Amino acid sequence: MRFRHFYKVMPTITFLPSGITVQAESGENLLRVAMKAGIHVNASCGGAGVCNKCKVFVESGEVTGERLPDGGWKACVTTALTDVTVRIPVESEMDRKVLVRPLARRAASWAEVAGDAARLRIHPPVEKISIALPAPTLQDNVSDLERLKRELAQGRLQDVAIDIDSEVLAHLPESLRTGEWTVTVNLMEGARQDQRRLIRVEPGAASEGHLGVAVDIGTTTVSAELIDLATGKILAGASDYNPQVSYGEDVISRMEFARRNGGLEILQTGIVKCLDGLVREVLAASGFGASSLSILSIAANTVMTHFLLGLETRYLRSDPYCPVATQFPPVRARDLGLDVPNHVRVFLAPCVASYVGGDITAGVVGVGVNTRPDLTLFIDIGTNGEIVLGNADWMACAACSAGPAFEGGGIRHGMRATTGAVEAVRIHPETWEPMVLVIGGKKAKGICGSGIISLLAGLFTAGALDQQGKFRRDKKTARIRSGRDGWEYVVVFGAETATGQDIVFTEADVENLIRAKGAMFAGYLTLVESVGMGLEDIERVILAGNFGSYLDLDQAVTIGLLPDLPRERFFYAGNSSLLGARAAALSWPMSKVMANVANMMTHFELSNSPMFMDHYVSSLFLPHTDLSLFPSVTLPS
Amino acid sequence: MRFRHFYKVMPTITFLPSGITVQAESGENLLRVAMKAGIHVNASCGGAGVCNKCKVFVESGEVTGERLPDGGWKACVTTALTDVTVRIPVESEMDRKVLVRPLARRAASWAEVAGDAARLRIHPPVEKISIALPAPTLQDNVSDLERLKRELAQGRLQDVAIDIDSEVLAHLPESLRTGEWTVTVNLMEGARQDQRRLIRVEPGAASEGHLGVAVDIGTTTVSAELIDLATGKILAGASDYNPQVSYGEDVISRMEFARRNGGLEILQTGIVKCLDGLVREVLAASGFGASSLSILSIAANTVMTHFLLGLETRYLRSDPYCPVATQFPPVRARDLGLDVPNHVRVFLAPCVASYVGGDITAGVVGVGVNTRPDLTLFIDIGTNGEIVLGNADWMACAACSAGPAFEGGGIRHGMRATTGAVEAVRIHPETWEPMVLVIGGKKAKGICGSGIISLLAGLFTAGALDQQGKFRRDKKTARIRSGRDGWEYVVVFGAETATGQDIVFTEADVENLIRAKGAMFAGYLTLVESVGMGLEDIERVILAGNFGSYLDLDQAVTIGLLPDLPRERFFYAGNSSLLGARAAALSWPMSKVMANVANMMTHFELSNSPMFMDHYVSSLFLPHTDLSLFPSVTLPS
Repeated sequence: MRFRHFYKVMPTITFLPSGITVQAESGENLLRVAMKAGIHVNASCGGAGVCNKCKVFVESGEVTGERLPDGGWKACVTTALTDVTVRIPVESEMDRKVLVRPLARRAASWAEVAGDAARLRIHPPVEKISIALPAPTLQDNVSDLERLKRELAQGRLQDVAIDIDSEVLAHLPESLRTGEWTVTVNLMEGARQDQRRLIRVEPGAASEGHLGVAVDIGTTTVSAELIDLATGKILAGASDYNPQVSYGEDVISRMEFARRNGGLEILQTGIVKCLDGLVREVLAASGFGASSLSILSIAANTVMTHFLLGLETRYLRSDPYCPVATQFPPVRARDLGLDVPNHVRVFLAPCVASYVGGDITAGVVGVGVNTRPDLTLFIDIGTNGEIVLGNADWMACAACSAGPAFEGGGIRHGMRATTGAVEAVRIHPETWEPMVLVIGGKKAKGICGSGIISLLAGLFTAGALDQQGKFRRDKKTARIRSGRDGWEYVVVFGAETATGQDIVFTEADVENLIRAKGAMFAGYLTLVESVGMGLEDIERVILAGNFGSYLDLDQAVTIGLLPDLPRERFFYAGNSSLLGARAAALSWPMSKVMANVANMMTHFELSNSPMFMDHYVSSLFLPHTDLSLFPSVTLPS
Repeated sequence: MRFRHFYKVMPTITFLPSGITVQAESGENLLRVAMKAGIHVNASCGGAGVCNKCKVFVESGEVTGERLPDGGWKACVTTALTDVTVRIPVESEMDRKVLVRPLARRAASWAEVAGDAARLRIHPPVEKISIALPAPTLQDNVSDLERLKRELAQGRLQDVAIDIDSEVLAHLPESLRTGEWTVTVNLMEGARQDQRRLIRVEPGAASEGHLGVAVDIGTTTVSAELIDLATGKILAGASDYNPQVSYGEDVISRMEFARRNGGLEILQTGIVKCLDGLVREVLAASGFGASSLSILSIAANTVMTHFLLGLETRYLRSDPYCPVATQFPPVRARDLGLDVPNHVRVFLAPCVASYVGGDITAGVVGVGVNTRPDLTLFIDIGTNGEIVLGNADWMACAACSAGPAFEGGGIRHGMRATTGAVEAVRIHPETWEPMVLVIGGKKAKGICGSGIISLLAGLFTAGALDQQGKFRRDKKTARIRSGRDGWEYVVVFGAETATGQDIVFTEADVENLIRAKGAMFAGYLTLVESVGMGLEDIERVILAGNFGSYLDLDQAVTIGLLPDLPRERFFYAGNSSLLGARAAALSWPMSKVMANVANMMTHFELSNSPMFMDHYVSSLFLPHTDLSLFPSVTLPS
């Protein structure tokens, strides 16, 4: 749906009768603005424009959208062109007294607070140097290799031992002579400062780029960005689903698949093809050719890293959970099957343990937990749920086995955050009627992570769910009913869904979510107490992953997913794993820092910790059995 | 020809009427003993038993062999069983006055004087260690690789950085668990003392051998020996012709062949197949399987090394003669195409320049030139002719472009030292009739290196050749005549040869030999004078190659091939290149010594040296234009 109008950049919307004023984003529809402002509008279709329950009247200013016969506008498809005042009719606005919720509180951007990786001194793990050699004579007829090494040793690389790849050696005489003794070389850093490896020798002075691709291989999504290694500039970005999803939504089912005959190979080939596609895409977008590519810097969790390298994963998933390796030498991209030139090297972020991977190490270093004195809790609520506690001096980490519930996994109508996903829900405190927002303004197909949290928090706050996660069964509403899997709440009735089937949220779903948030919370507590501290000592909470930026902090605290700390201590970091991969691509010292961080991180294996089990059991309530841990949360009456 | 007799181990033979007494080797025929004693016996068939000219009469003691009707014995097939006295009849013995030559003087064995490589402290470049790891627990669930590294770091390998091959990593989890946490690892030394590379992990404690194959790849012959890397014991040996011979006798013609389309690959594959065959042969002889093999240690000249590695050789052979490389990192045998297990590594002796190769570096270190204070001249008269001058403090080297004349190359009836080759010739000082010895006691097919030298020296000493290498044309003998290619000497007439054709030695052959020995001698002089010394300062001459052990020193000096130094300064070392390869297989420090020796060696490029050209021109006489350089040589009257 595209409008040919000129919107005011950030129009101010005043909602009557409440008088609440809020700034809209350019082109944001009024329903979405109301949701953001904490104003309830009955809107059960999620913005598909079919329920006609979101009617508003414009009292001043100009809008564009769909008008109803009575002069009202459908808020879900109407957008302000100027500052406007709109009135919500009685049937769509709830009583003023139930306007208990303030504006949704989101975490601030950590990048804006901390500055970003641009501060890095650029020093990529592979450097590209053009160099002119003296032509040989009878008086000076050392070998071609010696001549090149000797010239390299003239400057900064004095006393550096230089190895050479055998296929580079094979082409060395031609390259030197075609370039008339001027060549461009790719030199890879070694384990030590005084070691390098010659991995490419091209004739002549460099004429093309020196590029790296930073990649975050998530269990679900793979993101890549193309970086100019000379300037640090990001030239292009792309992302794609991890094709391994076809063989299992989560790492456990994929490891199961890997045990089948040829399974590991299928997973390995799949991710390699995906990387090939992303590399092609970002190169095409930038206009550079593949021969400009020098490195790939990849951060991924331990299982994804094992799959990429074709390593056995069966021991990752069973007690005592040993990875094959956690630190990986640079590997030739071609050896992994990537369709890139021979010289391209892959650098992998080091892992800590089976369930604390390179994405976490990269993330922690990407956001700089290791460079600051203040105690930071780094949380990645992804498919699994990993946490890191620490600062520049020490770090402890754990995987919480939270499972993928907050990504929609194991939830009856859970789905990924794509078109048709219910992304936000408000529950009317008295009628328990929902106000639903759907991604893409289409009919709903399911509920994604942020929708799930707002649904759980909303139902609990409204009193529709009790502390144990059971629905109130005494209220006269068609939305709460006994369904196929036990009691459930109808989020969208079939008449307004894409499938024609009711979209429901079941007690079984709630149970899964409570277990997931309980595991996370028990993880925070165990980690904090293991180092002799309390939650209140945490000076900063950094939320990693896309999840963090959309999370309503109050809702997340209300259900006990986040600790009840002052909201200004929370920050979102976006894809911190990709941030770390980028840092490693641009800075070899950062790679070494990552290796040190991985080494210094004390890993707490929670699966056999009695302390964790105690905390876990206590956390299986909304928000927790110990309400003193959640002073800001008021239980519904 | 086998005798079922018990020979006295070393019988004493007394020849009458001269009274000369000499010790025979066990089973050595009387003709051979006479040749060794410097006694001329007319014997034109070379020991094939057909000319009947070598008749002797036994006066005391017992012999076995073939008796003639008059009671005499054919010396060429008769052997002493006890100490014997034999009389040479007038018709076969020359006049006593012409018995000018003393016993043939050969060089002493350097190995016997210096002791051999057994003194090496055994420390191979790859070590094999069995190690038991603690099984992982939830409290100790580091990665498999970390566990292995940690245990290795417990002992001697503390603070050593350990890398791992990616395919070893892929099999690591299986190996550890199959072996129930006991494994045997192959650890390869790194460029530095504190680096190792894990190149093999086998389940369980080691049950098989840890073997190396030392190889000398000569232009003509490839020799290999199987070594127990734990004890230093040599378990088996084998040698074969270099199959590249089919594509050119010498390195120049092979480099020419390598320039053809696919030529280099044919040469590379050829030598690899040859190595495969030798490895199989020595393993079969020892009873060990291929999985016991850990390393190959190879010494070869620069061209052979380039061919083996598949490196371009076209720049080796043209001004300014640059090799692609002279020092080579260890390479996986499989990457070269060898049919051995994945973990087997190839170590290559470092080269100095295009025509001073790893065979020389290995040879010099193999005989220990680098460990002694006395000035040593190391001479390898092979296909090319390389020399090294120096001691523990400094070394200078040069290639003399001598060509393969002394190996029979470019000589009309030259051939390799196999059955049918004339290996020694004496020329009667008055009649110029030859006394001929043929390898294998068969009819002659050609003349090999040692035969060529004795022929040249003999003809010159007898006065049949003048200082310029021209035959005397005034003597009445059927042996000197004008042939197809100019004047020639008939060594064996067609009636007594294998082919039925005359075997001749031409003035063109003599010219080739004079050029070859001239290049060698000019090389010695240039090297010695370049460091401000004289030939008389040389305290020791070491003759490398099989050539050295059979060489008659007096003859070699007489023709100007060796400097006229006291004979006790000469030693032969046998295959010193193989000796060096063995040392490198057994001792990693020796490999590093070789690299240092290659680095410290000052290479004199003779092809453009005016000093060399001057010396060369002066050396184109027998023995030399400057007779004061050859005080022991008396010119024939």
